[in-house]
Amino acid sequence: MPREIERKFLPKSDAWRSQVRQSRPMSQGYLASGGNVSVRVRIAGQEAWLNIKAGGFVASRPEYEYPIPLGEARELIALAEGPLVEKTRHFVEHGGMTWEVDEFHGDNSGLVVAELELDSEDAAFSRPPWLGVEVTELRRYYNVCLVTHPFRAWTDAERNP
Amino acid sequence: MPREIERKFLPKSDAWRSQVRQSRPMSQGYLASGGNVSVRVRIAGQEAWLNIKAGGFVASRPEYEYPIPLGEARELIALAEGPLVEKTRHFVEHGGMTWEVDEFHGDNSGLVVAELELDSEDAAFSRPPWLGVEVTELRRYYNVCLVTHPFRAWTDAERNP
Repeated sequence: MPREIERKFLPKSDAWRSQVRQSRPMSQGYLASGGNVSVRVRIAGQEAWLNIKAGGFVASRPEYEYPIPLGEARELIALAEGPLVEKTRHFVEHGGMTWEVDEFHGDNSGLVVAELELDSEDAAFSRPPWLGVEVTELRRYYNVCLVTHPFRAWTDAERNP
Repeated sequence: MPREIERKFLPKSDAWRSQVRQSRPMSQGYLASGGNVSVRVRIAGQEAWLNIKAGGFVASRPEYEYPIPLGEARELIALAEGPLVEKTRHFVEHGGMTWEVDEFHGDNSGLVVAELELDSEDAAFSRPPWLGVEVTELRRYYNVCLVTHPFRAWTDAERNP
């Protein structure tokens, strides 16, 4: 079973920006987000994918991803529930690993989340100096939750975990 | 936009059985079925697909279908909401067109629905002698609805439209 094992953190500074290797705009919409499974359409430049995740809001969960034609992705994303999640994904190198730093836009403007994919939940990794608090198990930081509860609507307490 | 244009009928006899060209067992489960969009996993023998339909319970609706690996389909179908829909699809020739006659099993045993894919909603077609009443716009006959309201639970009135 393909699994995504991913830990999420908030950057405590903007120092990651000086290590960006590449940046990519992404739009994503959810065809389904109820129950245990989310079905996502993602468009990144000229590429697009259908993605299915299960298992809730934890570091390790089953994930299935299928490339789909861009034209169909544009039609499918128009069927999404609620607003799209728009972000720029920055790829940031540190200690031989690639961090994905997502800088959100629109109703989620101001939110930045740094993610690291790992081979196991307890895999060792080198903490970059800009890395702040871990939010892996806080569901509001999951993209699927940003559709219904965008960063703009978060309380001060929610913004400072 | 790929569209499925399909009309659904009940057979008024079993005479279609003598014209079956091929039969195929199918299992399907729904990863999502709320709102306007359904996301279905179908396994038919050694083949599997992810399928997305939108637009409700009418003859013509957007449909997107992607083949996926059988092993992943088996894992995905295990994530489905509710019981699987199990059926045998019989391919029946009449008047140069292929009817798909779905004979359901399990909780939907006893239900048989004949479907015809068309190029347009008002395309002409030859009615086979075994063809009965049209049910295209009756939502209970849609596979996605058979998960939550299986044929076994239908009233006599529901069984005789």
